[in-house]
Amino acid sequence: MMIKAGIIGSTGYAGAELVRLLLAHPEVEIAWYGSRSYVDKKYASVYQNFFKLVDAKCMDDNMEELADSVDVIFTATPQGLCASLVNDDILSKVKIIDLSADFRLKDVNVYEKWYGIKHAAPQYIDEAVYGLCEINREDIRKTRILANPGCYTTCSILTTIPLVREFVIDANSLIIDAKSGTSGAGRGAKVNNLFCEVNESIKAYGVATHRHTPEIEEQLSYACGQDVLINFTPHLVPMNRGILVTAYANLNENVTYEDVKAIYEKYYGDEYFIRLLDKDVCPETRWVEGSNFVDIGFKIDERTGRIIMMGALDNLVKGAAGQAVQNMNLMFGFKENLGLELVPVFP
Amino acid sequence: MMIKAGIIGSTGYAGAELVRLLLAHPEVEIAWYGSRSYVDKKYASVYQNFFKLVDAKCMDDNMEELADSVDVIFTATPQGLCASLVNDDILSKVKIIDLSADFRLKDVNVYEKWYGIKHAAPQYIDEAVYGLCEINREDIRKTRILANPGCYTTCSILTTIPLVREFVIDANSLIIDAKSGTSGAGRGAKVNNLFCEVNESIKAYGVATHRHTPEIEEQLSYACGQDVLINFTPHLVPMNRGILVTAYANLNENVTYEDVKAIYEKYYGDEYFIRLLDKDVCPETRWVEGSNFVDIGFKIDERTGRIIMMGALDNLVKGAAGQAVQNMNLMFGFKENLGLELVPVFP
Amino acid sequence: MMIKAGIIGSTGYAGAELVRLLLAHPEVEIAWYGSRSYVDKKYASVYQNFFKLVDAKCMDDNMEELADSVDVIFTATPQGLCASLVNDDILSKVKIIDLSADFRLKDVNVYEKWYGIKHAAPQYIDEAVYGLCEINREDIRKTRILANPGCYTTCSILTTIPLVREFVIDANSLIIDAKSGTSGAGRGAKVNNLFCEVNESIKAYGVATHRHTPEIEEQLSYACGQDVLINFTPHLVPMNRGILVTAYANLNENVTYEDVKAIYEKYYGDEYFIRLLDKDVCPETRWVEGSNFVDIGFKIDERTGRIIMMGALDNLVKGAAGQAVQNMNLMFGFKENLGLELVPVFP
Amino acid sequence: MMIKAGIIGSTGYAGAELVRLLLAHPEVEIAWYGSRSYVDKKYASVYQNFFKLVDAKCMDDNMEELADSVDVIFTATPQGLCASLVNDDILSKVKIIDLSADFRLKDVNVYEKWYGIKHAAPQYIDEAVYGLCEINREDIRKTRILANPGCYTTCSILTTIPLVREFVIDANSLIIDAKSGTSGAGRGAKVNNLFCEVNESIKAYGVATHRHTPEIEEQLSYACGQDVLINFTPHLVPMNRGILVTAYANLNENVTYEDVKAIYEKYYGDEYFIRLLDKDVCPETRWVEGSNFVDIGFKIDERTGRIIMMGALDNLVKGAAGQAVQNMNLMFGFKENLGLELVPVFP
Repeated sequence: MMIKAGIIGSTGYAGAELVRLLLAHPEVEIAWYGSRSYVDKKYASVYQNFFKLVDAKCMDDNMEELADSVDVIFTATPQGLCASLVNDDILSKVKIIDLSADFRLKDVNVYEKWYGIKHAAPQYIDEAVYGLCEINREDIRKTRILANPGCYTTCSILTTIPLVREFVIDANSLIIDAKSGTSGAGRGAKVNNLFCEVNESIKAYGVATHRHTPEIEEQLSYACGQDVLINFTPHLVPMNRGILVTAYANLNENVTYEDVKAIYEKYYGDEYFIRLLDKDVCPETRWVEGSNFVDIGFKIDERTGRIIMMGALDNLVKGAAGQAVQNMNLMFGFKENLGLELVPVFP
Repeated sequence: MMIKAGIIGSTGYAGAELVRLLLAHPEVEIAWYGSRSYVDKKYASVYQNFFKLVDAKCMDDNMEELADSVDVIFTATPQGLCASLVNDDILSKVKIIDLSADFRLKDVNVYEKWYGIKHAAPQYIDEAVYGLCEINREDIRKTRILANPGCYTTCSILTTIPLVREFVIDANSLIIDAKSGTSGAGRGAKVNNLFCEVNESIKAYGVATHRHTPEIEEQLSYACGQDVLINFTPHLVPMNRGILVTAYANLNENVTYEDVKAIYEKYYGDEYFIRLLDKDVCPETRWVEGSNFVDIGFKIDERTGRIIMMGALDNLVKGAAGQAVQNMNLMFGFKENLGLELVPVFP
Repeated sequence: MMIKAGIIGSTGYAGAELVRLLLAHPEVEIAWYGSRSYVDKKYASVYQNFFKLVDAKCMDDNMEELADSVDVIFTATPQGLCASLVNDDILSKVKIIDLSADFRLKDVNVYEKWYGIKHAAPQYIDEAVYGLCEINREDIRKTRILANPGCYTTCSILTTIPLVREFVIDANSLIIDAKSGTSGAGRGAKVNNLFCEVNESIKAYGVATHRHTPEIEEQLSYACGQDVLINFTPHLVPMNRGILVTAYANLNENVTYEDVKAIYEKYYGDEYFIRLLDKDVCPETRWVEGSNFVDIGFKIDERTGRIIMMGALDNLVKGAAGQAVQNMNLMFGFKENLGLELVPVFP
Repeated sequence: MMIKAGIIGSTGYAGAELVRLLLAHPEVEIAWYGSRSYVDKKYASVYQNFFKLVDAKCMDDNMEELADSVDVIFTATPQGLCASLVNDDILSKVKIIDLSADFRLKDVNVYEKWYGIKHAAPQYIDEAVYGLCEINREDIRKTRILANPGCYTTCSILTTIPLVREFVIDANSLIIDAKSGTSGAGRGAKVNNLFCEVNESIKAYGVATHRHTPEIEEQLSYACGQDVLINFTPHLVPMNRGILVTAYANLNENVTYEDVKAIYEKYYGDEYFIRLLDKDVCPETRWVEGSNFVDIGFKIDERTGRIIMMGALDNLVKGAAGQAVQNMNLMFGFKENLGLELVPVFP
């Protein structure tokens, strides 16, 4: 069974990565390269890596028309757009995988507070499934509207959630210090993202205000059954791809390396996309680049009674397009890692 | 038909790229991860990107033993090694694809002069086929010993050879200014290749003495039937992958853009791995990264009567491991681009 | 004697580098930080490196007012602006150092053809002095309007001109392959200059059409007394600063390394800012970063009868702001290297 | 008064930075370029940035001989060397500024435990002064043996100590997540520090075991009069220079932005080298590169009751050589910022 996919926002970095992955997917044909900014321009002239591989031109954001011609729509657009376009008619015809934040948060007030915009379609929030496959696999299979998690969020949650769920750590003591490659900042023409401004520097940004914070908190709250407040600080790193999360938390009890390892194994031992590293091996973003893997390691600090959990992923793959395809695979009954058995590219 | 492959020198960058490509190849199983420096060490602990994907340990360089157990041996080793190991018995059992320079040059004196070592097996030079698929396809299919071209060489020859063959340019006026990412310098622990030494800098090296020079000259000489002497200057660029060649030559006659384009089309119009860019589009290494493509463009400068030809490839793929796999496909009767339909990874 | 300087265009990269250099100059006080885009904004909030060092706010481009209050005006602006503002009254009050291309070319037709704009003040072209200090030192001392050379131009001319002047090489055979760091592309918010677009890539641009070509040709023509046409190809390199020029030319006669070295010594032996490297040492941009030095080396290729000349400088210092200060020193009778004895910063 | 300086370990990155700074210092002459690995080699051939600026050859590590000929010795060597060379006779003749860890920790057991070597000269530990100028200024003026702080340590302590001292934060809740450029890893030829291994990646290392941890703890313990245990995690960033510290701590009481700002002002308001950033401005390493500044900012997170303190410095300047020169200035009665009024270099 071959399905047809449409991409709204195909000329952002996440959209282009979707194109890369779907071109190599044996069961999908891309039928619509949406990009409001480049309508009628050859897609391969915007992303020359697709020269000779994609012949199509960019199309407008017409979700109605798209719904009639494809099986799945990916929206890789700024927050607000997907919610403003979706409606009952569309949802009756097509499945939607939204890479924006519109349907990630269950509490519309939290959404409106952190994003500073009014939610245009709150009636679909309940129905939408949060697409962290390793956590919500069964619900994902059944949904027609999928909220693809944020890049920082995916890395933060997957790195910490087993220990939150098992009450090994005090979730409210969690401090997540995250570092991202620059593709996470998008392809907008901003001085701050120019080569010379990013190269040879590192900085924190969005300190105590970054929008992925409530998304992490909400999922961790579900995991432990109580409200969780954390600190989350993103940093911009002079590299193209990759997110590294270094998470600190107080241990609730005395645990050994083996205890903690066993918990991670319990949750992730059978997960294809999560690689639990050997003792004393720290994740590095270079080892996951281009792939859908998340590498996870940890270290107990007996001196301070804390644990340091670390996770690495490729922000454009497992942090965006790859996870979207993984979700698509679940939603359409394909093998979960179909088209995603990507070997990380190094160096 | 599934074949077995052995890699000698699997822990260099080219060797590791071979592993990446062969893991994704539907007709090959890697049976031997050779690496003298890491014998008995888990391969995936040397290249952590293969964690959970490769379980094997590194083996010694035993070509005799290897010849009994595999169908094809790749030698991704420094010059001299392959020539010192190969013999009639081995060649009767297995096909060899040598990524080093040992069998690239037909004139053993030229080899010994530029490489400064004695050739250990000159008796196989004649039999060896120079593995530039787009040029020597038919001979490659039949050989049992394949000399995989150098990275700079592949880019330089493919970019210029149609115009040399058709006498559009004066081959002896050729000046090739090449720029390479740092993986071309190998994984040896040298101060000059440390991050801080390479980053934020560019330099020429091996000026007028680089060993890829005679390799380019020999192939271009065959193409035009006369001895060719060129200038070739490599440069080290602060990036991981990629080679860009900017080649200058005097035009022999008045030609238009269309004339030249037609010649390129004649030679490469049907080649899957060569992408002739549109008018006024210059190749950029980012658009071929991770793939086996060569992107080629050119510009006629009427003021000076010269043409500037430009080519870009990924030095580890089309410049090394990808071309080796392309050669293997030809040698074993597989579809030429099997396992090599890699979409370039950007950013 | 302390002089006052005004900078028009102080928030571009060259303008900011002028600020860095002038702050450390013992005889200059910056009295005007011009920047049309940031009027009334604190200069140090645009370039946070000057926090606590510069308290001033950005001012408009009012050259009339500026002429009444300072001794020298630097225009670090796009071509066309300086020519449109300058007039007799201003020139009677103040000296102008123009970092744009407006007064570099003596032939106004060449200017208008390559830049595609009408020259607004051709009457001052004759009076303007081309500010390559090592070539035009005496004229520079006397002028009131100084055309500061382009970055590529400075590197290209200084690297090749002694051999052109002495007819050691055939100037019309010159092929200049230049590589520049990304600060040369300016601070404009363009997608092409985003971190992810530049990083991990190299490309040629402006092939056969770059505007520094006629500037190089004009100066080399003066040097050898005949019209010179060359090929000049710039490349964008993923680093912040630095230009490397690799120049190829046919030798007119048999010369030895010592012959050529003697010619370079004749012209540059006493120049503080030009460092003639030892035999077989190639210039690298990392060794000049942050300084006003130009490092020059060369290699004779007896096989092809050509010479490869190489030069490296920091495009923002000797290629722009440093050279401007060197010119200022000459124009105001200061020691030529005052405030410019900068030790290159490595790594 | 001109003094003479000798450098032991002048060919490491910190040693070379000392050379850069001392060459520009008006009161110092470098009399000895020590480097065991490069004895008799021209210093400028090891660091080509000093070509034409330094004519000297590298000398051996003879501290006895050195003590007779210079006023101050800088040891920029691995831990253990300085302690093994120093003795009463030497200390009677010369002042020593040790950039290694030998005299930083007052408790010799802590030193021997974390560094895994026996301390060769524990008798001088008490006399040695910890050279964090902003904290220990008066003691530094009087000492003859100075322990120059570590790079991470300098940044970590200066960023947090005012709030520790004033009990605004719970020192034992401190979590310091630090990010460093690669020059911090030294110039040793190791595979892990090759360009291709560091570029396009980020990783934590030395998790819960890094040797700067006890150094930070000791100084913070002095500040608050009680034992302090913290978490400190360093990360390797693909850039040459720069350290960014992101420090998290629980607030002991309700404080406002103004309260905290006032405390920082109290301690640092008059410090030339510490720049307290404006509200909501986060430090970025690019803004301090090449200078001796430390930029500090902070953000209160009312949701979690924590504060996030951030500091940035250049690891080779304020984190090593610059601080050493600042200490030297104090020890010899020079103006504290003599030779150190370096404007940060951007981009």
